[in-house]
Amino acid sequence: MNAEIIAVGSELLLGQITNTNARFISEKLASIGINVFYHTVVGDNAERLKKAIKIAESRADLIIFSGGLGPTKDDLTKESIAEVLGVKLVFEEEALHSIENYFKKRNRPMTENNKKQALILDGAEVLPNLNGMAPGMILDKDNKTYCLLPGPPSELEPMFTNFGINALLKRLTSTEIIQSRVLRFFGIGEAQLEHDLIDLIDQQTNPTIAPLAGNGEVTIRLTAKSSSLELAEELINETEKEILNRVGQYFYGYGDTTLIKEMGRWLEKSNLTLAAAESLTGGLFQEEVTSISGVSKWFKGGVVTYSADVKEKVLGVKKETIDQYGVVSEQCAREMAENVRELVGADIGVSFTGVAGPASLEGKEPGTVYVGIAMKGKETKVSLLQLFGNRETIRIRSIKNAAWRVIGLLNDVD
Amino acid sequence: MNAEIIAVGSELLLGQITNTNARFISEKLASIGINVFYHTVVGDNAERLKKAIKIAESRADLIIFSGGLGPTKDDLTKESIAEVLGVKLVFEEEALHSIENYFKKRNRPMTENNKKQALILDGAEVLPNLNGMAPGMILDKDNKTYCLLPGPPSELEPMFTNFGINALLKRLTSTEIIQSRVLRFFGIGEAQLEHDLIDLIDQQTNPTIAPLAGNGEVTIRLTAKSSSLELAEELINETEKEILNRVGQYFYGYGDTTLIKEMGRWLEKSNLTLAAAESLTGGLFQEEVTSISGVSKWFKGGVVTYSADVKEKVLGVKKETIDQYGVVSEQCAREMAENVRELVGADIGVSFTGVAGPASLEGKEPGTVYVGIAMKGKETKVSLLQLFGNRETIRIRSIKNAAWRVIGLLNDVD
Repeated sequence: MNAEIIAVGSELLLGQITNTNARFISEKLASIGINVFYHTVVGDNAERLKKAIKIAESRADLIIFSGGLGPTKDDLTKESIAEVLGVKLVFEEEALHSIENYFKKRNRPMTENNKKQALILDGAEVLPNLNGMAPGMILDKDNKTYCLLPGPPSELEPMFTNFGINALLKRLTSTEIIQSRVLRFFGIGEAQLEHDLIDLIDQQTNPTIAPLAGNGEVTIRLTAKSSSLELAEELINETEKEILNRVGQYFYGYGDTTLIKEMGRWLEKSNLTLAAAESLTGGLFQEEVTSISGVSKWFKGGVVTYSADVKEKVLGVKKETIDQYGVVSEQCAREMAENVRELVGADIGVSFTGVAGPASLEGKEPGTVYVGIAMKGKETKVSLLQLFGNRETIRIRSIKNAAWRVIGLLNDVD
Repeated sequence: MNAEIIAVGSELLLGQITNTNARFISEKLASIGINVFYHTVVGDNAERLKKAIKIAESRADLIIFSGGLGPTKDDLTKESIAEVLGVKLVFEEEALHSIENYFKKRNRPMTENNKKQALILDGAEVLPNLNGMAPGMILDKDNKTYCLLPGPPSELEPMFTNFGINALLKRLTSTEIIQSRVLRFFGIGEAQLEHDLIDLIDQQTNPTIAPLAGNGEVTIRLTAKSSSLELAEELINETEKEILNRVGQYFYGYGDTTLIKEMGRWLEKSNLTLAAAESLTGGLFQEEVTSISGVSKWFKGGVVTYSADVKEKVLGVKKETIDQYGVVSEQCAREMAENVRELVGADIGVSFTGVAGPASLEGKEPGTVYVGIAMKGKETKVSLLQLFGNRETIRIRSIKNAAWRVIGLLNDVD
C-alpha cells in the first residue's frame, strides 16, 4: 500500500504556517510500513483541489487529507471529495449532537454554519475528534482509501494516533514489519562517509542505507522489512556492525539524540560537572545544555564574556595575555577554560573564543575559533577550528565541536 | 506568474524532517506578488521526480526545487530536470574551484563525487552558495522558469533572499505592484487584537489585514495592491495609522525584527550597555542578543548561574537571601540584576530566575518567573510572570518579556 498526503489550506501556500501535519502523518505511516510517495499542498480552491485528488488517485492507494473540515466557506475538502467520488454528504447524528452541546456548555449561540462540520461522506467510518468539533473519516471506494483529518495539529495528531492508525491497520493485507534505526556521526563529511560505505550502499536491499547530512553532522537511517520484529532488528544489527567497523570512530549516538545530550550522558556517568566560558558563541552552548531538563546534575553555570574587559574583570584572564596574543588566541582560550572551571567550581571548563563574523577580528577571518577544555589534574587542551558559513553556522559548529571533544576526553578517561 | 514548489527528499516522506523550505519560499514569493498554487514533496527517486516535474509544468509558470543538489547518488534533482528538459549538465568553473578550495583549506581529501556539485544545467544563471558547496541555479526554457535551490535551510534561505528573489523580480512582467508590511505586537492576545480591530478587518479590501499569532506575539500583515509603489505605501500608511491609534501601546516594530533587536536599537540610541544574569533561561537571552552582529556596542556579557552556589560564588548573591526567600524569588532576582550590572560594569543589568519545568522548584509551579532590571541611578524593578507552556515556551517568553520591559524603561527615560 502506498500513500499520498494532501494538505489543504491557503495559509500553507502563503507561507504563514509550515506543513507539520504531513511530517507527523508520514512518520506514523512509516512506522506501520506504509510507503509515502508524495505530499501535496493545495489552497482553499475547489477546482485545484479536485485536480489534485484526481492526480493522487492515479498514483496512490491511500490518500490522506488534512484540513478544510471546518465551518467556514473556505472549508471545501469534504465537498470536493464528494464531487470527485460521486458520493453524498450526510449528517452524522453523534457529531451534530456534540457540536450543539459544545455551544450549550459555553452559553454561546451556535451559528448555522457550524452544522456543516457534522457532514460526512456517505458510508464513511467516523474518526472521533476529542479535541475539536469536526470529526474525521475514512472511506473505501474503488480500491482506494480516503482518510480525512482536521487541520489543527492539536486535533489531527490525537485523532490519527488513537483512531486513524487502527483503521488503517485493519486495511493492511501485508504482514510485513518495518523497523528503522538512525545512526549519528560527527567529524566526517557526507561524501567521505558514502565513499567509505559505497559497496554497502550499492548492495543495499534490506536494510536500506540512507545517509543524510545537515548542520555539520551526517546520519544514516537503516530500514529493514521482515516478517517479525526480531528478524528486522537482526538485519539492522548486522549492517550497523559492518558500518561501525568502518566509520565507528565518528559515531556518537542513535535516533534524535544530540552531541550535547550525549556529552551530558557521559558527564553524568562519569560523575563530573561542567562550566563554560563563551565569547563568540555568546551563551549558545549553555543555552543548549540547559534546554535539557535535569542538567543540574552535571551543569553548574558559566559566563558570557562578550567584551574583552569582561574577560579580564569577571574571568581573570590576564591583561598581558590579551595585549600580547589577542582575545582570539590559544592562550586566551586556555585561560578562559581554566579560570571558569576554577571560578564556578566545576570539574571541567569549556571555553570558546573566536570570530563569528561577518567582520574579521584582530586580523583573523570569520570561522577562526579556539575551543579550550580544562580538566582537573589534566593538561588543558585547546583546538583551533577553521569553520565556514555564516554567523549562526559558525556558532553552532563551534558548540558541537566542543561537545564532541568533551565526549572524546571522557572516552579516554573511561 | 504562478508557482509550484517541489521539495525533493525521502527524509521528508519518512517524516524525519518538516518541509520548512516550502514555507520560507512561499512567504518570500507572496511578498513579491507571485501566487503559489501547489507544493509537492517527492522522494529521491528519479522516475517519480520526473513525473512530478511534468505535472508541475502543466500547471505552473515557475517551478522552484529544493534539495537533491548534493554529492551523493541520492541527489537526483539536476539530473532529472536535465532529462525532462533535454538540457545538458556542464561544470561551472567557479563552483568547481570553490569546492576544491574547501577541501584544500581543511586539508581533507576531496572524493570524486564532490565534483558533481559543480554541475549546472547548461545555460542556467548561477545562484552563489555562500554557506555550502552546491550552487543554486535558475533557467528559462519554453516559457517556464526553473529555479533549483539546495536543501539545507542554512544554505537555501540566504541564497534565495540574496540572489533568488532578484533573479525572479527581473522576470516579473506584471504592472500590478503588491506591497506588504508586517506590524509586530507584544503583550496583547490575538482574540483581543481582533476584537479591537474587528470593524477594520470586516471592511478590509485594500490593504487586506491579516492577524497571525505565534510564540506569544501577534503580527498583522497589511497587503496592498496598486499601480504604483507610492500609492500602495499610502494605502498601507493610512490603515497602519488607524490600527496604531487603537492598539499602538502594544506595537514594537516592523517586518522580521524581534523584541531583542528592538531592545538593542533602543540601547544603542541611548548609548547604554547591558549585562545579564540568567538562571532558568540558561543563556538563551545572551545567545539571542549575540546572534545579532555588531552587538558589542551595547552588550558586554554576563553569567549563567544555573546552580544556587554559582549565584553566590560568581554573582555574590547573599546566602541569607537564598536561605530566606529561595532562588525563585523577587529578592534573588533583584540581587542578580544589581550584582551582574556591577560585576560586568554595564549600565543596565537584567536577571532571570524561575521555574522552566517540567518539575516544580521550591514549591513553585513551572512558569513562575522573576525578571529583574537594574539601572544605574534608578530603582531596580522586578516583575513576576506567570507563564504557560513547556520548558522551551517558558524560556522564550521570559526573554521576550525582559526585552519588552527594557524597551519600556528606555522609552520612559527618553
